[in-house]
Amino acid sequence: MAPYVIGLDFGTNSCRSLLVDVATGREVAGNVYPYPSGTDGVILDPSEPNLARQNPDDYLLAIEATVKGAIREAKAVDPGFSPKDVIGIGVDTTGSSPMPVDEQGQALCFQERFRENPAAMVWLWKDHTGYKEAAQITQLAAAERPQYLSKIGGTYSSEWWWSKILHCRNVAGEVYDAAGSWIEICDWIPAVLTGNLLPRDVKRSVCAAGHKALFHPSWNGLPDEEFLDSLSPGLGALREKLYEKAYTADFRAGTLSAEWAAGLGLSPSVAVAVGAFDAHMGAVGAGITPGTLVKIIGTSTCDIMIHPLEEPLQDIPGVCGIVDGSVIGGYYGIEAGQSGVGDIFLWFVNTLVPDKYGRTQEEKFDNLEKAAAALKPGESGLLALDWNNGNRTILVDVRLSGLLLGQTLHTQPHEIYRALLEATGFGALTIIDRIQEYGVPVNEVVNCGGLASKNPLLMQIYADISGRPMKISRSDQTPALGAAVFAAVAAGEDSGGYGSVSEAQNRMVGIGKTYSPAVENHRMYKKLYSLYRQMHDAYGTQDWSGRMFNVMKDLLDIRDAVRRSRE
Amino acid sequence: MAPYVIGLDFGTNSCRSLLVDVATGREVAGNVYPYPSGTDGVILDPSEPNLARQNPDDYLLAIEATVKGAIREAKAVDPGFSPKDVIGIGVDTTGSSPMPVDEQGQALCFQERFRENPAAMVWLWKDHTGYKEAAQITQLAAAERPQYLSKIGGTYSSEWWWSKILHCRNVAGEVYDAAGSWIEICDWIPAVLTGNLLPRDVKRSVCAAGHKALFHPSWNGLPDEEFLDSLSPGLGALREKLYEKAYTADFRAGTLSAEWAAGLGLSPSVAVAVGAFDAHMGAVGAGITPGTLVKIIGTSTCDIMIHPLEEPLQDIPGVCGIVDGSVIGGYYGIEAGQSGVGDIFLWFVNTLVPDKYGRTQEEKFDNLEKAAAALKPGESGLLALDWNNGNRTILVDVRLSGLLLGQTLHTQPHEIYRALLEATGFGALTIIDRIQEYGVPVNEVVNCGGLASKNPLLMQIYADISGRPMKISRSDQTPALGAAVFAAVAAGEDSGGYGSVSEAQNRMVGIGKTYSPAVENHRMYKKLYSLYRQMHDAYGTQDWSGRMFNVMKDLLDIRDAVRRSRE
Repeated sequence: MAPYVIGLDFGTNSCRSLLVDVATGREVAGNVYPYPSGTDGVILDPSEPNLARQNPDDYLLAIEATVKGAIREAKAVDPGFSPKDVIGIGVDTTGSSPMPVDEQGQALCFQERFRENPAAMVWLWKDHTGYKEAAQITQLAAAERPQYLSKIGGTYSSEWWWSKILHCRNVAGEVYDAAGSWIEICDWIPAVLTGNLLPRDVKRSVCAAGHKALFHPSWNGLPDEEFLDSLSPGLGALREKLYEKAYTADFRAGTLSAEWAAGLGLSPSVAVAVGAFDAHMGAVGAGITPGTLVKIIGTSTCDIMIHPLEEPLQDIPGVCGIVDGSVIGGYYGIEAGQSGVGDIFLWFVNTLVPDKYGRTQEEKFDNLEKAAAALKPGESGLLALDWNNGNRTILVDVRLSGLLLGQTLHTQPHEIYRALLEATGFGALTIIDRIQEYGVPVNEVVNCGGLASKNPLLMQIYADISGRPMKISRSDQTPALGAAVFAAVAAGEDSGGYGSVSEAQNRMVGIGKTYSPAVENHRMYKKLYSLYRQMHDAYGTQDWSGRMFNVMKDLLDIRDAVRRSRE
Repeated sequence: MAPYVIGLDFGTNSCRSLLVDVATGREVAGNVYPYPSGTDGVILDPSEPNLARQNPDDYLLAIEATVKGAIREAKAVDPGFSPKDVIGIGVDTTGSSPMPVDEQGQALCFQERFRENPAAMVWLWKDHTGYKEAAQITQLAAAERPQYLSKIGGTYSSEWWWSKILHCRNVAGEVYDAAGSWIEICDWIPAVLTGNLLPRDVKRSVCAAGHKALFHPSWNGLPDEEFLDSLSPGLGALREKLYEKAYTADFRAGTLSAEWAAGLGLSPSVAVAVGAFDAHMGAVGAGITPGTLVKIIGTSTCDIMIHPLEEPLQDIPGVCGIVDGSVIGGYYGIEAGQSGVGDIFLWFVNTLVPDKYGRTQEEKFDNLEKAAAALKPGESGLLALDWNNGNRTILVDVRLSGLLLGQTLHTQPHEIYRALLEATGFGALTIIDRIQEYGVPVNEVVNCGGLASKNPLLMQIYADISGRPMKISRSDQTPALGAAVFAAVAAGEDSGGYGSVSEAQNRMVGIGKTYSPAVENHRMYKKLYSLYRQMHDAYGTQDWSGRMFNVMKDLLDIRDAVRRSRE
């Protein structure tokens, strides 16, 4: 018998299972379950565009549907497969997506009185209702606990744990008061699967704790009571309902509960790994090692690196977080990100592209890509900033917006489309430059996520802009594959798994295609990148005091030079 | 019998006749003739996007078709009308649109050898092939004849007379050498109608001469031979083939030639007025007086004022021209303009608006306007610069481009449409501010041209941005009506016309609708205008050294404040 593991990837709109051959990483079977609640799985409030919640019951339905679906498919395609050969389950989720639970660890919204109350549900990562609380936390930390900010890029985000909990306390006191604890869904799902739900017993993810909850060993875990009480009198009392330790995902959360084992048709000896966020597990599924930047490119990006604990590492301004063990134990996990990538392209195509480019979104993308690919860098005279959804790294500022410059009376949609692709490429290079400036060498870039496999023009542009090969992960499902890697490690060698993450990676993950930079394009993009940085610094930083006058002239000169070079 | 006059308006794509009752200004009949040559009357060169020429034969066909058409219609609608009651013809044209002619004043392209040669045709106003020559002229004048630049806003344009003639000499020497003279079409058409074609005898328009050919009494007419020879050795010899005097349009070019009188069925006693440019005659047709700014709003705008000769007037930097008599004798004509207005809206609607806003351009405009009108100033968070076609006044710089700032993932086409309308309104206010800063009070704004009558939202936005009433000319055809006013003056009192332009204006022109500014909108637009000016100065001038950082923050604050005010 060959051992198998299952990775469960809880996304924003659906959950995906991936059943993987432990020996080779072969993806044997998988299944996707769209969440039934809300709009595409997200509970919205028309009067509050910042609100985005999720129904935790959807996750329970998703586990059953996707695990059973994968097993069914595996049986069909792989005659040698038997459910009893599954040795581990790994879980990755979105985050920070905290949820209030009762003292037994059950979701508060499972109680009748809170069933329709969005404050009692999962506060999805993209819920920004706590933006004022985030500003308050940043302000207080800057004044009283600057060390808190040094590990998270200098600004506490409205997407994160404490902003959401504090906002809940401010606007839905009855929910806050009823909560026996709060839990990230990456911790809650393994807890559910193992049946170890008691909040103080749950093995919390160091990835979530360190990146989102200001958890750090140097100040003894979570923020101290005094700090929390200064934020909001009484908030400090929550601290003891939470946790003092946090774990890397190669730890076992436990084994499958008898109830779930029976329900899923799996053995109760199946190891369940400690959970972590999708991007971090995705980085592992893409083959992260020291010196590798993994970009998970979808609606936004998450950029992940690791750095050996024993080597010095300074704080990197604007990088979202540096957390011991958040990706792989024994390494710092470094997390950065671009807050708008695929979302910007989708917005443009769905909003500003006329039907002559195609009737469907897919046709429009196809035709735009064809026409945009025929352009040379600089030829359109356009330059954009990729800030339609703010800027995460390196500016850490949601209050920024998009900018398009250089349009004439002849500018065409595919030119703008290319300018938007390029803008995200410049944003990507800005992150690489910042990380290297602070002493972490970026020797390799591996891309994964939907756009890495679906948008060759984007990848070629990234290669041309950065002057680096853009490697594409072999798997299209790196988060689920990363979760499967951790499942194999949590199961351990004795069960047919692996003794370490790197050993598991060596066997289970790899690189597919590589895009090589074109020298001539890179030379042109160096000029455009310098203009992008001028605009970036002019609009994005307060300490810039130069002039903008040359921007349009330079763009026109470049455009004209390109046109002449065609003659 | 009531006297009638005919105004002939030679536009970019067609010619229009307007047959007007001299006593009341009633527009009795009219006719439009689209030019048959080229693309919509413009001869293009796919390999040279700057080229735009016209076939002068189209004008001759147009005279016959439109005059006869108007007479036919007048007979049908006005039983009292007889062609012998027509006492005058006035002519306005685009410009600077010069043409090489032989020594008899006939178009060079009427010769077989030049029939297909674009250099021998009319160099249409929007031909920019002479952009390098324009820069050379500006440079030489700045060094050697700074006085030349002081009357034209500091920069000689590629659209103007000398740029085109010099470019012709540089690229089509055989045409240049064959030319017995050069002539603006506003001078050539009256010359044709009167039969007085000899280049030295043609009464040249002071409007064309002063605004486009560096003609000024203080340096004895056209630029001196030495200057021209410095531009290009031998060019100075052209000077004596041109003219030493120039005339206001209340002068008579002559009376209708026997041939044309017979051909058109009019009396040979019909007075033909000296020609002028469409915008200047349009200003007269809109009722210009001292203190009135007339905006002719179409694909671009022309902004015209007059100022009494006896009152002091300093040079106004960035204003395209200040010319004695170019609008009305006895006054300085002041010409400014925005290089892109309707063209920008057309570009946007035809390029970036999906079909859900409508299948036709007209439907799209209608639906965009409805949706945009529902927005409050500042609500979209967007800000645009109106520079897709460069900036004429006050920056006099064709090497500028468009800019859109503030877009998010939720920005909609009608929001961008409104931002573009607003951008042209800010551009309009920038011109008003500049003119007033230099001591010319703007007491009234009268708008005419296609967009003034067809786009109520645009006019309301201009009122709200400027805090001034926007008056709309009663006539939809102010250039043709202005030409008719000059026809009535050229005919003179003895023939049933008028003794002065102001007397004719009092009887023949008037105001239709007025848009009043909304106080609250004006207050908001003051803030947005200040941001527009920050961007304007940052990107458009070299002497600006401030910071850009606040722009997006301020826009978001404004947007949020507006949203809150809706709650």
